[in-house]
Amino acid sequence: MVAPLRVGIAGLGTVGAEVVGLIERQKRTLSLRCGRSVRVVAVSARSKAKKRNVDLSGIAWAKNALAIATDPKVDVFVELMGGVGDPALSAIEAALRSGKSVVTANKALIAKHGSRLAMLAEKHGGALNYEAAVGAAIPIVKTLREGLAGTGIDRVYGILNGTCNYILTRMEQEGLSFAECLKDAQRLGYAEANPSFDVDGHDTAQKLAILASLAFGTKVNQSAVYVEGISSIAPEDLRAAQELGYRVKLLGVAVKTETGIEQRVHPTMVPRISSIAQVMDVTNAVTIDGEGIPPITLVGPGAGGAATASAVVADIADIARGVRALPFGRPVAKLKATAKAPMRRHEGGYYIRLMARDLTGTAATIAKRLAEQKISIESIVQRHPNGGAASVNGKSQPVPVILITYATTEDAVRRALQAVKQDRVITGRPQVIRIEKN
Amino acid sequence: MVAPLRVGIAGLGTVGAEVVGLIERQKRTLSLRCGRSVRVVAVSARSKAKKRNVDLSGIAWAKNALAIATDPKVDVFVELMGGVGDPALSAIEAALRSGKSVVTANKALIAKHGSRLAMLAEKHGGALNYEAAVGAAIPIVKTLREGLAGTGIDRVYGILNGTCNYILTRMEQEGLSFAECLKDAQRLGYAEANPSFDVDGHDTAQKLAILASLAFGTKVNQSAVYVEGISSIAPEDLRAAQELGYRVKLLGVAVKTETGIEQRVHPTMVPRISSIAQVMDVTNAVTIDGEGIPPITLVGPGAGGAATASAVVADIADIARGVRALPFGRPVAKLKATAKAPMRRHEGGYYIRLMARDLTGTAATIAKRLAEQKISIESIVQRHPNGGAASVNGKSQPVPVILITYATTEDAVRRALQAVKQDRVITGRPQVIRIEKN
Repeated sequence: MVAPLRVGIAGLGTVGAEVVGLIERQKRTLSLRCGRSVRVVAVSARSKAKKRNVDLSGIAWAKNALAIATDPKVDVFVELMGGVGDPALSAIEAALRSGKSVVTANKALIAKHGSRLAMLAEKHGGALNYEAAVGAAIPIVKTLREGLAGTGIDRVYGILNGTCNYILTRMEQEGLSFAECLKDAQRLGYAEANPSFDVDGHDTAQKLAILASLAFGTKVNQSAVYVEGISSIAPEDLRAAQELGYRVKLLGVAVKTETGIEQRVHPTMVPRISSIAQVMDVTNAVTIDGEGIPPITLVGPGAGGAATASAVVADIADIARGVRALPFGRPVAKLKATAKAPMRRHEGGYYIRLMARDLTGTAATIAKRLAEQKISIESIVQRHPNGGAASVNGKSQPVPVILITYATTEDAVRRALQAVKQDRVITGRPQVIRIEKN
Repeated sequence: MVAPLRVGIAGLGTVGAEVVGLIERQKRTLSLRCGRSVRVVAVSARSKAKKRNVDLSGIAWAKNALAIATDPKVDVFVELMGGVGDPALSAIEAALRSGKSVVTANKALIAKHGSRLAMLAEKHGGALNYEAAVGAAIPIVKTLREGLAGTGIDRVYGILNGTCNYILTRMEQEGLSFAECLKDAQRLGYAEANPSFDVDGHDTAQKLAILASLAFGTKVNQSAVYVEGISSIAPEDLRAAQELGYRVKLLGVAVKTETGIEQRVHPTMVPRISSIAQVMDVTNAVTIDGEGIPPITLVGPGAGGAATASAVVADIADIARGVRALPFGRPVAKLKATAKAPMRRHEGGYYIRLMARDLTGTAATIAKRLAEQKISIESIVQRHPNGGAASVNGKSQPVPVILITYATTEDAVRRALQAVKQDRVITGRPQVIRIEKN
């Protein structure tokens, strides 16, 4: 019998307490699966006095995270404190330097310091596992790192933020505005008091940068991700999407193009019949297009104490079984640097919603400007408010015109819309949503 | 640099040729991911002369599978011949006995001999990897064996046979009969000339027995699976399902119950909004209910040369990286025997379609018989053929009565239907489809 794997956990919030409880409840199965027992030997947290729903008797209380990270009686350092800098960062560094393996659920930290930490793990022979950092219990890191190890990847994209998907789901189902749904999400605890990190797409961007690294062998680099949030999405966009056979999702997309790896986060029209379009509420999902094979989609909870703990314990179990995967699947020295995707060069279909001042002549003007940029129109819908009348009290009202284009470049779309604006046939800012085909 | 991993492949059909090609195309990535190169050094196949779309120069032709399995210059024996017995079986045994690792896509062989082969792998220290045997490129074996290693599983269920899902999809979308769709599936190459193995549920049962072993630590045992195929499903069942908010899928379900692990394959009503209900055509999907966490669903291609090769190469890559997972996640000696699920004790909701001889009094009789068995009715639909009239030329016609019950036992349903039959108020055989809630 191999000696037990000794686990030290820094951070006893919801996830930390769940991890302690899960390891205890599953100890028999874990020891069968790993060929050795897994034992939590030390924990640390800000408050020792806080009431937690888990039995900590027989587990040593460490002074702080660093004490666990450098404790020779600990084999695996589990970081569940969060925060992109210290104390989490220096504790992880210390643990890796001492040859320990590290498990973390800290996506922000991996997105920012992942490559450097992976280098330390490589050098000192420890594992650096972070399955819980993206999609919680959805085994997406393992799938990209191991399950598709021999398959070239063309594209990976997904719904990586539960808050945004919850808001878009409610907006679509109830015809509510973004602001109303955000308020509800905050009330229900699905959104933070300061929601920007989620709704402006930064959380998704961090996760995407990690997935891109695993899929394409790039250096994790959040600043290489083009980011656009969901706050501009209006109920009329969701209604139009429905009519046109689409649904709007905040997607993170990493895709191989002729000019390199394009990483982008933005509201996206996805075909209503695609697997990803069915993913509602706070659920997350990732689709992987492997070379020559139909898409693989993984769907599941992207957050929550139990779901996150499930991934953390699986990461620990891998270490117990002796597995030491390279953190990003390839040696850090071989990871390629990436630059920010030049979105003007992005190619794809577009949804465009304009408010035409007056229909007479406007449609023709728009069509002309699009044609000048060689943009082909797949469909066009003109909505007449007030039951078909385009005028109220004799005064003509702006009329929504909705276009779906065939594949074109973003540059062409921007030029065409600039020209339409200068023609003064529309009011307000055009709404533009990229289309992602499955 | 570690020495290259030397791979020998027995069987050069579509999958075998794809594996050779994929290893060659991905050689750079594989060597980065594995820390060593992966090299195909020997192959065998029935015909050396057959034209194959792959470069075999520099690869030794072995006399037969056994010669590869016992070749000291081969580290991994890849079995892609198929067949539940020899020559595949004895070659795998020989390879494992010589301490080699084995990769196979052969689900029938794993379902039948899995436990015994796993024992050999354990004893001699080799891996026995078979990701491709269930759901091809969908990483379901890895997810259950590793990704959820620390999470108790309550239930695993899925669409594991593309032929059946294709037939049910066509039947639903076009209102066609089972027989018509089967013929089309055969014409398109989605179904065999003798379709029984697929449409009667046996293929699904083999895959389910493997998944149950991984999820619940049972000994793989196909004969413990209750099996019912899809040939009795009629277009009117699919129409009724749609109206009632369901879809009919052939599911394999393994679930923990108070009396043990229930393994069953049968046509199933699944809620139309569930992830699994969205899976159409030949696509496969598996949903896993982990203890205390929302369901995780993996969707993707369940067959095809490239998808199968993707999983085979990932299995090889794991071996190259030095990973030796226990084939069923736990030591074979600890796997529990299972008996066939006593379906009379099965609990759940039911869809029942009866042909009432005459409506007067029949509904009351049916309701009475169900009530005697303490079965509660969730909904009841009476269909009047011929636009509402229940009689043609003055002669009363049988009228379909469709019931959805709340959770009850199969025993109660069978007793109630037996009584209704004896009351002589219905004609023909009642259609009964189990409901699986998500």
